[in-house]
Amino acid sequence: MVIDEARLCLTSARVATLATARSSGEIDLVPITFAVAGNQLVSVVDHKPKTTPHLRRLENITGNPRVTVLAHSYEEEWNRLWWVRVRGTARTTASGPDHRDAVRLMVDKYPQLVDTPPTGPVIILEIDEWLGWTARQSGS
Amino acid sequence: MVIDEARLCLTSARVATLATARSSGEIDLVPITFAVAGNQLVSVVDHKPKTTPHLRRLENITGNPRVTVLAHSYEEEWNRLWWVRVRGTARTTASGPDHRDAVRLMVDKYPQLVDTPPTGPVIILEIDEWLGWTARQSGS
Repeated sequence: MVIDEARLCLTSARVATLATARSSGEIDLVPITFAVAGNQLVSVVDHKPKTTPHLRRLENITGNPRVTVLAHSYEEEWNRLWWVRVRGTARTTASGPDHRDAVRLMVDKYPQLVDTPPTGPVIILEIDEWLGWTARQSGS
Repeated sequence: MVIDEARLCLTSARVATLATARSSGEIDLVPITFAVAGNQLVSVVDHKPKTTPHLRRLENITGNPRVTVLAHSYEEEWNRLWWVRVRGTARTTASGPDHRDAVRLMVDKYPQLVDTPPTGPVIILEIDEWLGWTARQSGS
């Protein structure tokens, strides 16, 4: 999959999996809603009460900003499968212009957020590595 | 989500994301088909030709057997979301009774494999940590 196709697949995906590492080395995985603009991927912790595992992602990023995100499709027709994996350095912010821009991107993408835009911290990932795969192109 | 519900959700999921760590600490993510039996999760590298990133998971597990797997649902109705995350110690094997049992579990679950059962190495994860979440129970 060429990078333009990977970009299109990731941008149009509705959900992805965010991987962050604890200081112990254990990997935390959580599904995220997200938006992509250029080489930035943003995600917002929503306004619903969260228990510890949900906020662990922020703590992990503070300790180790290298994160990986995977978006994929699944269908029972396996020759339609695809996935896109991106890697980069993330930061978190709870207010300011970057926060506002990220929330705007999220609200533009998800109608679910229009009435009550999220107010929690945002994660901003500067993507420096793209990798995409489709079953189609691998000749399955 | 109680453990029985997490087990049911994971067992019935058709796809999950496998996270393994490189020796450099970078996290590799890949979607996997898999089957669950008791506290074991198995996945088989299929018979299609794979390029390096796809087999990286095996190399990573040899170097660091601690892996994390996430299964989740996505629907636009966000109060139906759920995810299950498991962690454990993985090993890989290319033949023998464990390999045969894992392939059988996979073929039982996926009709796509019946005609050409996978012959590649299997990953066997001994799950020692279950965590499940539903939007429903968190009062969204």
